[in-house]
Amino acid sequence: MDWMLFLIFLVGCGAAATTGAMFQPGQWYDALAKPRWTPPDWVFPVTWTVLYLCIAAAAARVVVLDGNAYAMAFFAVQLAFNVLWTPIFFGLHRMKAALLVIVLLWASVAATLWHFWQLDWIAGLLFVPYLIWVSIATALNFEVWRLNRHNALRT
Amino acid sequence: MDWMLFLIFLVGCGAAATTGAMFQPGQWYDALAKPRWTPPDWVFPVTWTVLYLCIAAAAARVVVLDGNAYAMAFFAVQLAFNVLWTPIFFGLHRMKAALLVIVLLWASVAATLWHFWQLDWIAGLLFVPYLIWVSIATALNFEVWRLNRHNALRT
Repeated sequence: MDWMLFLIFLVGCGAAATTGAMFQPGQWYDALAKPRWTPPDWVFPVTWTVLYLCIAAAAARVVVLDGNAYAMAFFAVQLAFNVLWTPIFFGLHRMKAALLVIVLLWASVAATLWHFWQLDWIAGLLFVPYLIWVSIATALNFEVWRLNRHNALRT
Repeated sequence: MDWMLFLIFLVGCGAAATTGAMFQPGQWYDALAKPRWTPPDWVFPVTWTVLYLCIAAAAARVVVLDGNAYAMAFFAVQLAFNVLWTPIFFGLHRMKAALLVIVLLWASVAATLWHFWQLDWIAGLLFVPYLIWVSIATALNFEVWRLNRHNALRT
């Protein structure tokens, strides 16, 4: 693996991590009704740190391979939607719009995993925890929206 | 050009466009001191629409070429920073943090242009208006921060 490419992709993941650092769950999120299986707050930054390392490593492996056009196109798309979700959910508190974004994120992560896997199974495997986690996050976003959508206190 | 790849990259640009639609300049931005050369508000969405078409077209041209690893790595990074800037500036009103992000955006756009140009001069040319516009936006972000940093009314 080319470590410089890994670092460049890690900087890109850093843009996504920055949204998590700057748009924090606060009183609004604490006060929301949440499903019983909601992970505690500390799990999220720990999980994302591991995931970003896996994402950057997978991209650094695939970006040097021939025939990776669709793989790298979907990779760019999923990274953009990853950056987008947090400001909409934690910044604007727009749970339904965030749900739409995370469904698009899930689809683009799944498409990236599919194309990565065909080119390099290790890169595909590095994307599996990411897809699992976005699946959990999508279910959580859906449940939080369902449980709180009639709550007038949106902000 | 593979039109499906163009459309996938356009969806990625759509994530950036969504931040512009959801984090609008409002009373806060209107009330800021701005330099005399600040473009009127309507110029921004018009310009970005043209730029996103150029960005997606450039990426669709380069992503199919051999030896594009650094080009596509920097492309993903600049798209992520593009999505990140608007929520920090217009969402959080954090002008100094946004300035740091837009400097990183400028650097990653310049790096992408440089690598695109070496692989395909048309793709490089398609990135020139983007770099010019981000240069203007960086100068505007700097001036707005300089003119308003002592203003206690941050929000």
